[in-house]
Amino acid sequence: MIIDSHAHVVAPPVFYAYRANLLAAGGRYRPALGVSDAAVAEAAAGNIAIMDGVGTDMQLISPRPFHQMHSTKPDQVVHWWIEANNNLIAQTVALHPDRFAGVAGLPTCAGAPIEAALPELDRCIEELGFVGVLLNPDPYEGTGPSPRLSEEYWYPLFERLVHYDVPALVHSAGCNSGRETYSEHFVTEESIAILSLLNSDVFERFPTLKLIISHGGGSVPYQIGRWQAERLMPKFGGSPDAEPFEEGLRRFWFDTVLHNPLSLELLFKTVGTDRVVFGTEKPGSGSGTDPKTGRVFDDFKTTIDGIGFLTDADRSAVYEDNARALFPRLHARIPA
Amino acid sequence: MIIDSHAHVVAPPVFYAYRANLLAAGGRYRPALGVSDAAVAEAAAGNIAIMDGVGTDMQLISPRPFHQMHSTKPDQVVHWWIEANNNLIAQTVALHPDRFAGVAGLPTCAGAPIEAALPELDRCIEELGFVGVLLNPDPYEGTGPSPRLSEEYWYPLFERLVHYDVPALVHSAGCNSGRETYSEHFVTEESIAILSLLNSDVFERFPTLKLIISHGGGSVPYQIGRWQAERLMPKFGGSPDAEPFEEGLRRFWFDTVLHNPLSLELLFKTVGTDRVVFGTEKPGSGSGTDPKTGRVFDDFKTTIDGIGFLTDADRSAVYEDNARALFPRLHARIPA
Amino acid sequence: MIIDSHAHVVAPPVFYAYRANLLAAGGRYRPALGVSDAAVAEAAAGNIAIMDGVGTDMQLISPRPFHQMHSTKPDQVVHWWIEANNNLIAQTVALHPDRFAGVAGLPTCAGAPIEAALPELDRCIEELGFVGVLLNPDPYEGTGPSPRLSEEYWYPLFERLVHYDVPALVHSAGCNSGRETYSEHFVTEESIAILSLLNSDVFERFPTLKLIISHGGGSVPYQIGRWQAERLMPKFGGSPDAEPFEEGLRRFWFDTVLHNPLSLELLFKTVGTDRVVFGTEKPGSGSGTDPKTGRVFDDFKTTIDGIGFLTDADRSAVYEDNARALFPRLHARIPA
Amino acid sequence: MIIDSHAHVVAPPVFYAYRANLLAAGGRYRPALGVSDAAVAEAAAGNIAIMDGVGTDMQLISPRPFHQMHSTKPDQVVHWWIEANNNLIAQTVALHPDRFAGVAGLPTCAGAPIEAALPELDRCIEELGFVGVLLNPDPYEGTGPSPRLSEEYWYPLFERLVHYDVPALVHSAGCNSGRETYSEHFVTEESIAILSLLNSDVFERFPTLKLIISHGGGSVPYQIGRWQAERLMPKFGGSPDAEPFEEGLRRFWFDTVLHNPLSLELLFKTVGTDRVVFGTEKPGSGSGTDPKTGRVFDDFKTTIDGIGFLTDADRSAVYEDNARALFPRLHARIPA
Amino acid sequence: MIIDSHAHVVAPPVFYAYRANLLAAGGRYRPALGVSDAAVAEAAAGNIAIMDGVGTDMQLISPRPFHQMHSTKPDQVVHWWIEANNNLIAQTVALHPDRFAGVAGLPTCAGAPIEAALPELDRCIEELGFVGVLLNPDPYEGTGPSPRLSEEYWYPLFERLVHYDVPALVHSAGCNSGRETYSEHFVTEESIAILSLLNSDVFERFPTLKLIISHGGGSVPYQIGRWQAERLMPKFGGSPDAEPFEEGLRRFWFDTVLHNPLSLELLFKTVGTDRVVFGTEKPGSGSGTDPKTGRVFDDFKTTIDGIGFLTDADRSAVYEDNARALFPRLHARIPA
Amino acid sequence: MIIDSHAHVVAPPVFYAYRANLLAAGGRYRPALGVSDAAVAEAAAGNIAIMDGVGTDMQLISPRPFHQMHSTKPDQVVHWWIEANNNLIAQTVALHPDRFAGVAGLPTCAGAPIEAALPELDRCIEELGFVGVLLNPDPYEGTGPSPRLSEEYWYPLFERLVHYDVPALVHSAGCNSGRETYSEHFVTEESIAILSLLNSDVFERFPTLKLIISHGGGSVPYQIGRWQAERLMPKFGGSPDAEPFEEGLRRFWFDTVLHNPLSLELLFKTVGTDRVVFGTEKPGSGSGTDPKTGRVFDDFKTTIDGIGFLTDADRSAVYEDNARALFPRLHARIPA
Repeated sequence: MIIDSHAHVVAPPVFYAYRANLLAAGGRYRPALGVSDAAVAEAAAGNIAIMDGVGTDMQLISPRPFHQMHSTKPDQVVHWWIEANNNLIAQTVALHPDRFAGVAGLPTCAGAPIEAALPELDRCIEELGFVGVLLNPDPYEGTGPSPRLSEEYWYPLFERLVHYDVPALVHSAGCNSGRETYSEHFVTEESIAILSLLNSDVFERFPTLKLIISHGGGSVPYQIGRWQAERLMPKFGGSPDAEPFEEGLRRFWFDTVLHNPLSLELLFKTVGTDRVVFGTEKPGSGSGTDPKTGRVFDDFKTTIDGIGFLTDADRSAVYEDNARALFPRLHARIPA
Repeated sequence: MIIDSHAHVVAPPVFYAYRANLLAAGGRYRPALGVSDAAVAEAAAGNIAIMDGVGTDMQLISPRPFHQMHSTKPDQVVHWWIEANNNLIAQTVALHPDRFAGVAGLPTCAGAPIEAALPELDRCIEELGFVGVLLNPDPYEGTGPSPRLSEEYWYPLFERLVHYDVPALVHSAGCNSGRETYSEHFVTEESIAILSLLNSDVFERFPTLKLIISHGGGSVPYQIGRWQAERLMPKFGGSPDAEPFEEGLRRFWFDTVLHNPLSLELLFKTVGTDRVVFGTEKPGSGSGTDPKTGRVFDDFKTTIDGIGFLTDADRSAVYEDNARALFPRLHARIPA
Repeated sequence: MIIDSHAHVVAPPVFYAYRANLLAAGGRYRPALGVSDAAVAEAAAGNIAIMDGVGTDMQLISPRPFHQMHSTKPDQVVHWWIEANNNLIAQTVALHPDRFAGVAGLPTCAGAPIEAALPELDRCIEELGFVGVLLNPDPYEGTGPSPRLSEEYWYPLFERLVHYDVPALVHSAGCNSGRETYSEHFVTEESIAILSLLNSDVFERFPTLKLIISHGGGSVPYQIGRWQAERLMPKFGGSPDAEPFEEGLRRFWFDTVLHNPLSLELLFKTVGTDRVVFGTEKPGSGSGTDPKTGRVFDDFKTTIDGIGFLTDADRSAVYEDNARALFPRLHARIPA
Repeated sequence: MIIDSHAHVVAPPVFYAYRANLLAAGGRYRPALGVSDAAVAEAAAGNIAIMDGVGTDMQLISPRPFHQMHSTKPDQVVHWWIEANNNLIAQTVALHPDRFAGVAGLPTCAGAPIEAALPELDRCIEELGFVGVLLNPDPYEGTGPSPRLSEEYWYPLFERLVHYDVPALVHSAGCNSGRETYSEHFVTEESIAILSLLNSDVFERFPTLKLIISHGGGSVPYQIGRWQAERLMPKFGGSPDAEPFEEGLRRFWFDTVLHNPLSLELLFKTVGTDRVVFGTEKPGSGSGTDPKTGRVFDDFKTTIDGIGFLTDADRSAVYEDNARALFPRLHARIPA
Repeated sequence: MIIDSHAHVVAPPVFYAYRANLLAAGGRYRPALGVSDAAVAEAAAGNIAIMDGVGTDMQLISPRPFHQMHSTKPDQVVHWWIEANNNLIAQTVALHPDRFAGVAGLPTCAGAPIEAALPELDRCIEELGFVGVLLNPDPYEGTGPSPRLSEEYWYPLFERLVHYDVPALVHSAGCNSGRETYSEHFVTEESIAILSLLNSDVFERFPTLKLIISHGGGSVPYQIGRWQAERLMPKFGGSPDAEPFEEGLRRFWFDTVLHNPLSLELLFKTVGTDRVVFGTEKPGSGSGTDPKTGRVFDDFKTTIDGIGFLTDADRSAVYEDNARALFPRLHARIPA
Repeated sequence: MIIDSHAHVVAPPVFYAYRANLLAAGGRYRPALGVSDAAVAEAAAGNIAIMDGVGTDMQLISPRPFHQMHSTKPDQVVHWWIEANNNLIAQTVALHPDRFAGVAGLPTCAGAPIEAALPELDRCIEELGFVGVLLNPDPYEGTGPSPRLSEEYWYPLFERLVHYDVPALVHSAGCNSGRETYSEHFVTEESIAILSLLNSDVFERFPTLKLIISHGGGSVPYQIGRWQAERLMPKFGGSPDAEPFEEGLRRFWFDTVLHNPLSLELLFKTVGTDRVVFGTEKPGSGSGTDPKTGRVFDDFKTTIDGIGFLTDADRSAVYEDNARALFPRLHARIPA
């Protein structure tokens, strides 16, 4: 069975007209959302066709990250928008319960206390039956001092995740800094997430916290030597007695969203196949056809199948077993 | 011969008291700098001992990047500080002309026109005999909207570099964003530098511009598949007719400052040994001893020597030939 | 013939997905716009059905004002979005040249010189054959110090309008102040437009400038006594020798977008039927059905037909003749 | 009997020298106020002469709104200034208890909790015997995000008003936005006050809250059709089941400060004569002589007397009865 | 003859009502100023009585410094206010040409180019016959980075002063920093003026520039040892070859506005009686009666007469001769 | 015995490299401090040589004020830096307990609650045996609205000082306003400290609070007449019944750091020799040699010895007795 742990909901076009209306209303009133069931069904059917084309059995779908607008003001706009996204996901899952499971967007808002995002988390897990959450580590979207994941700000969220035993897919959203595209910002934020957490005591405080770092861990597996060195040097606040960096790195999970075979090999060798889950990011940066190969860029399964040193057990872990371990609520629904 | 293209000047401690006094004076007057010749000689001798320890014949030394303080106000402080750094480098080179060559710091200041940094560039090349420059692509040091290297802001500098035929080592400086350490910010800025330039026409405007990206190119060689895909997709402003990303990437040079053998292998395979120059970043993140190996972390030559697929020609290119091609002014001084 | 001088283009839903993508790209690249001809045709057909329902022969269509996002940064986003809107209008007009004429959106950007918006104005008039422009007097959209229309900032635009002899429909766009909805802000900005211009020498500088104030002139016809008084009082910088306020007011044109019969009567009596043009703002605030009357709120023609003191000549002026005088480029296309 | 519910205290000139000294002291000390009794008496006598000229029996006097400076920092300056104003009013009332009653200024300060303004409210009602308050709905004076009257921020004030059964005259103060004069801003703020309150549950929470909207309700009676329509449309957060807008509007009271007969007619027809109280705003925008009529602009009684459709009962309500119902504390002093 | 080189105009109270109206109008219109000739005459007569009381023959009067509001926005308000002040001074001088001479306020505005203040300077000197100017070295009034007098910003003003051969009385205005009262800020700004100018080449560029430092030179004569020392130390940018600080100090003039005999003695001994002019700052901080002595605090002449070491020539210089040398335009009017 | 109550620790140069590293780390990690015991001993020995040269028996040493960087962000940097300074002082005192005593730096941070600085105060007094504290009244270092010492903000610190019976040396630190050098800012802040406290009830709340004002009291003894006058005038919030200013001034202590004999005389006469303690500020502005006298500028003892009107008792008070009274914890260590 092929489980795609990093996928996004496909919305009908009118959903974006609603988004524009929400922005214009500015939180002063809640415009009615008029997405028909037929439109949702048509969008979902299109997505299933794509899944069938690349052999995916099940997608864990979350909101399109770059459309989440966590830094938009007032916060009310973000809340209403994220709720609409989660409702759309729930509607999609209800249409095809054997092909989709829900990963919840969270209304984390730049400058707001994290507690304000928790009721929507509760609703998604308890009422809508979602199995994980999407966690944007930079609610300011490139415009200000979001607390790093290592900071106390995030503890109440981590407590709730541990309580439900649901993992978080760490994935930034938009980027308004003017220096990075949102896609470039993904890599930066994933690196910050790993490095700040490994320089903190978060995993000691929350030993069962499950975090999946998108896009193969940003830059960290490639730059790992730098961080191994600094970890040992007092000048950088490190110590020869500290936990080796490469061991700490294995506290995270990673997805396979690296379109380059050499990079996937580096990832598997660096963090181990027991810490990697299959993911496609569909629909996303790779959802087009490469004129050279005739394949869509994000046909990751073909690429992974081509890596020689992986055993069958490795592939089974990456394609299915690791995801089942990570998402116990999924397991309840699709017994092995 | 082993040429280290990425190294930094070692300053005597009193140099930092001068730095503190400059900050306190706030540009309203220029405190006198009292670094004795003996102190400079002692610091240089220490550095040569380190070079001998790892087998380096020549270092191209620039200011310590994270001490450059390009975003400090008023700009006068930055100018006086960078000038003092360049003077210290010149003093060090004069003591050991066969072991050191100068790479100039530039007084690029957050929010100031780039033209204000050019007189110091001229002084370093024409009067002090330097062979390259250190280029911080983020003068705001993580606090604001530095123009990306793709923007017109930088053209006058590029023109001057092309005129002198001196390369620039792209390397960010401090980081005051509160989210990244300066060391983490290096990786982010190197990635932004590559990605913004390859989405621009800068290399068409300046075909002979020579840019070396520090630390093995940030995250780009690892995340290359993502950028190859986006380059072809109209949704991201790309086109199937665009220059393939992997070809564009070979317009840059890269250094070897990756402490991890697997990452160095990925780098060599992705950009080719003809685009990589030996560098150690000494003194920097790796200048301590690994308790496991007993070696200093930044003993890169031992690591490179251990990569099996490199030929002698490859090694000669990386250790010496590429650097000679990049730095013609160096070649004049140390004929092959 | 019934000419509706204040109407807006109806866009297919996918146009708003493009809007979201533009916002996410942040001006760093231009996402491809994929609106099919069929989708445009379907949207236009829907609009024509509405026109037929209320007896409108021709609509002068402009972008939906509150979606224009003039204060979004960087300015590049605004330019691309306004261009896309104008292209959509041109496409719609081309499908039904006898039912629609184009009124151009302008890429006026908060804080940018007005000159930057003029090339798009030229394109719309000269290449696309538009007959008027939509003028947002508050590009900051409620967030800052937009120059009032009385200020020199706007002169280059006024010169161009006079040159082409095209009128401007004064109509604000979004509002992000947190105090007003965009709809409430319309009224405020229309009032500011009138009052600031009548306290300036703009009409002396540009005697042939044609400005239509939307929504029956904001609050001014109702509050007119206040301004008549201040105009005469030295304490407010006025003078007994100044042009009487009520005469100055007749330098503007007004539309009929007032859903209340009493208010329309006040407007006609205050400014005269020779200064009012028929307008519906469709689709806009009134595009739903009143459960009490069974009529759509913005069926203004029925309301106007019910005002007893209007003569046939008055009605002909309001419905057709005044619009022909205002829009000479329209007249060329639909001879009386 | 003619009761003028919207009038302002006349201060002797030296009161403004005190204002300038308060601004200069910046809250760091409290300059002594040296206004002699004789100066106050002279100013009051002048005002009575004006009242006699237009036939007013009693004025309810409050501070001159545009001099209140609610956004001045530090807040201490505002407190001292408002206290001085209220003291001046009390002094004036004490001189002519049968001709004046006090309406209190409130030291509402931009960004400060509303609770800080309540002790002065208590002092004015309990110690000075005032009968109402002046309520500026925009303490930021056009420079920032004042909470709308619909927001929780204002509840403690509303509770206190209900407790004392004193009405509030809603009237903005200065305007520093650079876009509107303070006089223009009055109209804007009155409109925001009505629209935000009618889109809230404030009147359900405080059913006996009494609010008088100055200047005939800003733009709302004229633009009423727009708000009637939006109230019914889900797109604007409305609903066909909502309270009709025109009914909601009658929860407020309005004054007659509209210098134009047509506008007064529209007001009476729209909200009913039982919701309008006589007011002159003297001294204010209309306190000069119209060269055409030879009458002062704000001789509203003559204008109202000229409206044909008003009955004697209507006039009695507007001139006296409604004010007595609104201000029970006034009634205690001047029995009918 | 006793010439008071530091005195301020006495305005009738209604002048401050005009000030409040100017602030409220916000530059959008110019309220009419209604100060009657009788009111001006009454105020001037009061001032002459005070002069006679302390034996002053002639006052050089300038605007009340702390009311100048140089940092108020928009600049138009400052211009209109300063012009009104200068007109009031001219009116006062015209009434008593043998007792008063004019010292002009300048509309220097925070953040505006200094050139914008020069037309009013020209008007005062050429048309109104003023003899000097009042120079606020901190137009931001404690809220921001006013250029120090040593900076190029001020050169155009210095050129004009030299051209006319009129001196400037250096005297700050209001202070909105929240840390200092305006009176405390006077001392700070006078110190900054002296210290920044003596660390610059301004007196080499403008050798005939005449600057009078108010209030006996701020803190500088008392703290002189500190500056003498730093002037010689390279650490502070000084040099043993620099002009001694105490010599530089004598490039300025100073007034006698020090209410303490010991301090006046220190001043005379430190800068010499040839650099001090008699001044009273009336009306100002000292314009009240000391209960201990029964004298007004600012009866400086009595204090100076009591200093034993002064010769008759010293006193003549301070009371009259130095002022004549400083103000040649005054000399033309009152020949010795 | 000569006790120098105002002196600063002499740090080895490498201490400033640590400072630069702290700034670069930005609080994200704590770099190791590598100052060897030998380096500290060498620096201390140098200082003792200077003391012997001018005849000082004991120095009370505090951090170099202008290097304290209280406004640097994040606050963590300030805490670590101040702790390092205090540790260095403790190390120095431990080497020469009969020549040095510690005066603690406090990690007061711009915008932070004062309580955050108290644990370090406790540590210094209770664990390190310090005898006083250094108090910067402007933690914003010239860039913002530091609460004046008169404000409630500082009460918790005052309570703690009273509890321990340790005095505070009031001395500002850096200055980033762009208008004053840090040295000039010292004078400004000392004046603000005195004036704000004497216009407050702080000494009534904390009658035993001991504050020493550096540099002879800033400008206040020289400008005392001005403040005496304002204290009595209602216009400035004063009153004839208020405590005379000159009496209030004697609630403070002052040091002798005035390099000018005339100024020292003014100080002694104004505040009395019982309120002055000997201080040299070494190393500071005066630590160089005057080419004219051949003496170091800050050889204050020679200057004081030259003042004729001082008695032996006066000198004993200034040199030793007052300091013993001020610093009871010192007395315990060096019995008379």
